[in-house]
Amino acid sequence: MNNIDKRKLRMAMVGGGHGAFIGAVHRIAAQIDGQISLCAGAFSQDAQRSIDSGISLFLPEDRCYRSYQELITCEAKKPLDQRIDFIAIVTPNHLHFDIAKMALEHGFHVLSDKPATFNLNQALALKKIIEKTNQLYALSHAYTGYPLVKHAKNLVNENVLGNINKIVVEYSQGWLAPSEDDTSKQASWRLDPKQSGISCCMGDIGVHAANLAEYISGLEITRVCADLAPVVEGRQLDDDGTVLLRFNNGAKGVLMASQISTGEENDLRIRIYGDKASIDWSQLAPNTLWLKINHQSAQMIRTGVGHFSDNVIKAVRTPAGHPEGYLEAFANIYSNFAEQIRAFNKNHTVSNTQFDVPGIDEAIRGMAFIENVVRSNQTESKWSTFTI
Amino acid sequence: MNNIDKRKLRMAMVGGGHGAFIGAVHRIAAQIDGQISLCAGAFSQDAQRSIDSGISLFLPEDRCYRSYQELITCEAKKPLDQRIDFIAIVTPNHLHFDIAKMALEHGFHVLSDKPATFNLNQALALKKIIEKTNQLYALSHAYTGYPLVKHAKNLVNENVLGNINKIVVEYSQGWLAPSEDDTSKQASWRLDPKQSGISCCMGDIGVHAANLAEYISGLEITRVCADLAPVVEGRQLDDDGTVLLRFNNGAKGVLMASQISTGEENDLRIRIYGDKASIDWSQLAPNTLWLKINHQSAQMIRTGVGHFSDNVIKAVRTPAGHPEGYLEAFANIYSNFAEQIRAFNKNHTVSNTQFDVPGIDEAIRGMAFIENVVRSNQTESKWSTFTI
Amino acid sequence: MNNIDKRKLRMAMVGGGHGAFIGAVHRIAAQIDGQISLCAGAFSQDAQRSIDSGISLFLPEDRCYRSYQELITCEAKKPLDQRIDFIAIVTPNHLHFDIAKMALEHGFHVLSDKPATFNLNQALALKKIIEKTNQLYALSHAYTGYPLVKHAKNLVNENVLGNINKIVVEYSQGWLAPSEDDTSKQASWRLDPKQSGISCCMGDIGVHAANLAEYISGLEITRVCADLAPVVEGRQLDDDGTVLLRFNNGAKGVLMASQISTGEENDLRIRIYGDKASIDWSQLAPNTLWLKINHQSAQMIRTGVGHFSDNVIKAVRTPAGHPEGYLEAFANIYSNFAEQIRAFNKNHTVSNTQFDVPGIDEAIRGMAFIENVVRSNQTESKWSTFTI
Amino acid sequence: MNNIDKRKLRMAMVGGGHGAFIGAVHRIAAQIDGQISLCAGAFSQDAQRSIDSGISLFLPEDRCYRSYQELITCEAKKPLDQRIDFIAIVTPNHLHFDIAKMALEHGFHVLSDKPATFNLNQALALKKIIEKTNQLYALSHAYTGYPLVKHAKNLVNENVLGNINKIVVEYSQGWLAPSEDDTSKQASWRLDPKQSGISCCMGDIGVHAANLAEYISGLEITRVCADLAPVVEGRQLDDDGTVLLRFNNGAKGVLMASQISTGEENDLRIRIYGDKASIDWSQLAPNTLWLKINHQSAQMIRTGVGHFSDNVIKAVRTPAGHPEGYLEAFANIYSNFAEQIRAFNKNHTVSNTQFDVPGIDEAIRGMAFIENVVRSNQTESKWSTFTI
Repeated sequence: MNNIDKRKLRMAMVGGGHGAFIGAVHRIAAQIDGQISLCAGAFSQDAQRSIDSGISLFLPEDRCYRSYQELITCEAKKPLDQRIDFIAIVTPNHLHFDIAKMALEHGFHVLSDKPATFNLNQALALKKIIEKTNQLYALSHAYTGYPLVKHAKNLVNENVLGNINKIVVEYSQGWLAPSEDDTSKQASWRLDPKQSGISCCMGDIGVHAANLAEYISGLEITRVCADLAPVVEGRQLDDDGTVLLRFNNGAKGVLMASQISTGEENDLRIRIYGDKASIDWSQLAPNTLWLKINHQSAQMIRTGVGHFSDNVIKAVRTPAGHPEGYLEAFANIYSNFAEQIRAFNKNHTVSNTQFDVPGIDEAIRGMAFIENVVRSNQTESKWSTFTI
Repeated sequence: MNNIDKRKLRMAMVGGGHGAFIGAVHRIAAQIDGQISLCAGAFSQDAQRSIDSGISLFLPEDRCYRSYQELITCEAKKPLDQRIDFIAIVTPNHLHFDIAKMALEHGFHVLSDKPATFNLNQALALKKIIEKTNQLYALSHAYTGYPLVKHAKNLVNENVLGNINKIVVEYSQGWLAPSEDDTSKQASWRLDPKQSGISCCMGDIGVHAANLAEYISGLEITRVCADLAPVVEGRQLDDDGTVLLRFNNGAKGVLMASQISTGEENDLRIRIYGDKASIDWSQLAPNTLWLKINHQSAQMIRTGVGHFSDNVIKAVRTPAGHPEGYLEAFANIYSNFAEQIRAFNKNHTVSNTQFDVPGIDEAIRGMAFIENVVRSNQTESKWSTFTI
Repeated sequence: MNNIDKRKLRMAMVGGGHGAFIGAVHRIAAQIDGQISLCAGAFSQDAQRSIDSGISLFLPEDRCYRSYQELITCEAKKPLDQRIDFIAIVTPNHLHFDIAKMALEHGFHVLSDKPATFNLNQALALKKIIEKTNQLYALSHAYTGYPLVKHAKNLVNENVLGNINKIVVEYSQGWLAPSEDDTSKQASWRLDPKQSGISCCMGDIGVHAANLAEYISGLEITRVCADLAPVVEGRQLDDDGTVLLRFNNGAKGVLMASQISTGEENDLRIRIYGDKASIDWSQLAPNTLWLKINHQSAQMIRTGVGHFSDNVIKAVRTPAGHPEGYLEAFANIYSNFAEQIRAFNKNHTVSNTQFDVPGIDEAIRGMAFIENVVRSNQTESKWSTFTI
Repeated sequence: MNNIDKRKLRMAMVGGGHGAFIGAVHRIAAQIDGQISLCAGAFSQDAQRSIDSGISLFLPEDRCYRSYQELITCEAKKPLDQRIDFIAIVTPNHLHFDIAKMALEHGFHVLSDKPATFNLNQALALKKIIEKTNQLYALSHAYTGYPLVKHAKNLVNENVLGNINKIVVEYSQGWLAPSEDDTSKQASWRLDPKQSGISCCMGDIGVHAANLAEYISGLEITRVCADLAPVVEGRQLDDDGTVLLRFNNGAKGVLMASQISTGEENDLRIRIYGDKASIDWSQLAPNTLWLKINHQSAQMIRTGVGHFSDNVIKAVRTPAGHPEGYLEAFANIYSNFAEQIRAFNKNHTVSNTQFDVPGIDEAIRGMAFIENVVRSNQTESKWSTFTI
């Protein structure tokens, strides 16, 4: 018997071996709420390294696999009451598609680190595979996991802002500033088109900003005017960019992303201006959301203080005044996905939207965003239509 | 064989059943880093409720115990390669001592929620039991788990501040303000001398403030002048208080704690002024530590930005700009304790200090703090000597 | 004819020659709103220096006097349409009383820099002189001039806070920290009992904090428990102190003042907690006033944003978002005093309260505050009754 | 004799009668430092209103003129030891040029409110008049008067930032948001092309942002890509806009200006990113300047704390911790101009740059900025070359 309501969900991880930052984040995020347990893994393309990593994570040796292919094949053969429920993919970008495809086709749900695929075509192909296999697919747009981001979305839905006229979203980092060393592990693959794709800055962080704007506002980008470039000489990919935006309701927007902003940590901030009110949220102070109305005192909405909808309340673990952060936001993606998997077991028609889980549609829009802004950057015309 | 280096440590929990806030916090904190696994529990004084809680946490039914006595007795009989390694105590205060005593005497390490005991005498007695049983004992003074609190302590140790002259520590909350309902579950036991002991505000939060001041400064309180009172009529215990302090190096101090500060969330803040520099840290923005020197620009030290000692670095899980919070700070207590337990297995003489784990000495000073300030509040003399 | 409605008021200044910080502040504050003009002065006890100072301020040489006695005598002999209307006193503290007395007795209104006198007895004597001469007297408690301080007072008056239970007021500076040089001009007279009186820190800044608390709350201090001391060895007067307070409605309070808080600029902050709401204001960000209510988002009240009473509106010169500061707050004392003088000319019974001008009553309470806390500091009893 | 070193400079004002916000600001700014005295004025195009305004400002009736023509003609006939030294122009924009021209040609220096003229051609013509008449001309770009803006410029000059790669400057207001009333006095003329010129938002505030970027960085804008529009239906002029920038060293930039940003006060902020460090300054907290370097704690530079160059020191009137604001920044323009006039009296070749006074060159670049961005907004090409 395999009553998944009576046990933790079983996760396998592909990628995320020793020294990989994002693998550890996924493991924490997955297991923090006691709904999911890491049970297997292929943590590296190097077989020995993969096994060593699994053992150091206290996994049984027979579930530390030498490759993702081995993992998927072996787990698929296990009886239902032992085999894993889903696979988390945390490898470099160019491998995401193949792993997701194989996992889905062997009957495993997938949670993939962002970006979903190497390019838009792969994302579109992946959508077909998901539909055909009828497995679940989640994408780790972790910033949408913050409780006050969800509350901001609620405020938009409840028309507290009125019609939205303007969105300013920015994501600034300094880790690829001219003073930094491009040969560090992180820098070298981010700046390599073979591993990163056609964009560094927009692909890595601009896409988060675009996703956040669309997530909160409920709007879609329809036109772009992009100004991207490698600021540091000799780089093949953009390390900075600004994109003028139009949304499908006519609203104007500005998206700024930069990795050469000396001294900035990880400064993702969004401001949305409506007819009636505006909001302002920054990832560096994620438990504060500003709500501003002309001729009134600004309201400092704080996590846990006041009344919130259920989807916000369940995204918080502690009482007001006990700061939660990035790992908890990330965990909310996993928790919602776990809930979706449990529901799926009863009813195979659950949708990601229903469970507030970013999925293949966000993946496609993200990959399209990257391709559209790179294309716009190459033209001399001001505005390009956003196409998928 | 029981090589605890090759597996997660096994924890049992006493208390923390359905609806108990702090139990969930302990479970997250214990398991977040993948070093500890919840394996058993007696989650409630109500046997059925205990078992239901355990099952909902996906524990095997045979390790969901009907009482802590049953838990300790049964686990103690299990072979070494199955039995739990330590017990986390998260019950109401008045039960802490009995459970800790029984656990220690059956050969289990203990991590206790704060306060350690119901009064100072129990804490002193507990110390003797710990020494006699030679088991490990940790106390969840979670705020000392914040990376920048540890860095602040380092700055003091490295004499960056010079001689310390003044400490201002405050802990403000509004949840027991006059407008609130005293019959809520949290309020009613906090304000009940039978469950809370001789102090509400000082026992609950003042003691955290005192601990933080002594932890960072490395100093000890030697004299107090207390002004405590129930601000809200009809209450038997203090809901607000201020204590003038003297430290063992002659430094002056002020400790303010309040639960009737309308509109405050959980505002723990400490400022330490030395000859050469001062620091300022607030729990509401825990990833920022201010370092100030006369005639120089203040430095905003941020988690992960710049150079830190190893004890700080290992207390952080994510790169700069990815906020960590209360749960991660709490987890650092558990992680250090886990490390201490693993070391203990090799060498039975490890000390809490060595692993930066708050223990019975902090427990004793905390209970003494409560008794000293309550006594001072009752006298008409200004200064009372802090005695243990 | 001397229709003072048709001209600027004429001010003479005593003290404030070259290099005196506070003299320049008074000149700016007096003249910023175009209602007052500096027309004469005795700027120094050194006759030549006084004349040189006046000339550098573009005064006619015949109104640059060699002493305050000469100034008062000569101006008193001038015809009404030429002579000055009031005298601003900005000398060291120990001279305030004699100058004020002579000015009042010669028919001049007085605006005195704080503290009004050298000790409480002088302040009490001064009150009698004021009453006898029926001249106006203003005291420069400049921090009460900030628009949002006035708004805070209004909020209290309108019962937005409910009954006040707790007041925390603090005033921290670092300029007398141990690392500083006591022989600087400012430091040497502040720390000299002959020039400063019986207290340095409490007399200089603690008294501002006490005044601010009483001004906003409308309450009076009735009991004190003081802990004052020179932190830096060798000083004769306190450079740091904390005072526990009781107010006449039973509210508790804490007043902290310090000049040895390394790295602090001029950090005056007040929090007032009522049954229903609390406020929080800091002089370093004077255009922001926080209003907090349990279970609601905190409101960030900003100068010029929203609805304010007339007394607040007229204290602001620019639209929202154009920061005003200390000089404008100071100017509001002068502007209100100018209005009071103009009203006095029509009706000799105007009161300071009516024009929101700090006067002799605030002077007396301030001097009494200093004497009471110094006395309390010398006793071993916890509480002393505040007496005048 | 007319030794202007021995007296205050005499100013006449054109415009700024009852109810005009900016006139009062200029009067305060001019007179705050005791170097300048308002002596005459033509305060309104309505003769009676002009005279009434002058009298209410306590001017002698014979220097309250019925028109600016009368003012200039009459004052020019007065002997040197009585006539005014310069004229401040604070009328609506479309009158600036004619008044400045007539004043200069009658031998008066001019300080004009921003914008200098109605369009670029007038600004270019004005430059010729200034050169021909050899009078001084100042433009009130008040935000460059803030001490920490000057310090930021110094940091750039001292190469603390290294090569500048990116500038983000934004100026957000909410007072023309859709919820506001367009028929208010301020709104109606700002949105009227006959009074405002070809742009509302860019002309009113965008130009301040552009000036600030060029002032601090020492760079010049060379290319623009503008996205302007009236967000609120029915308006003839832009109320919001974003401009992508290139500077003459190749640096990228973004300039955002908006008057429809609901809830924003007057939020002018600039960030400049160099190879070595970055700065961040906001007008809403003008006494704080952030200096950030990768892998170091950010430095919070505060007005008056630490070491500054003389040009910064003389722009500050009070010690650290006493906030100065907009009026003082504005006054610094006047003070520098007063100093320039005094120097001019000795040596007729003084330049604006030498005295840090914005002048005709900034006026020309400002008007060119407006014309360039409006032109760019009308083209379908992405980039337009910035031309004058």
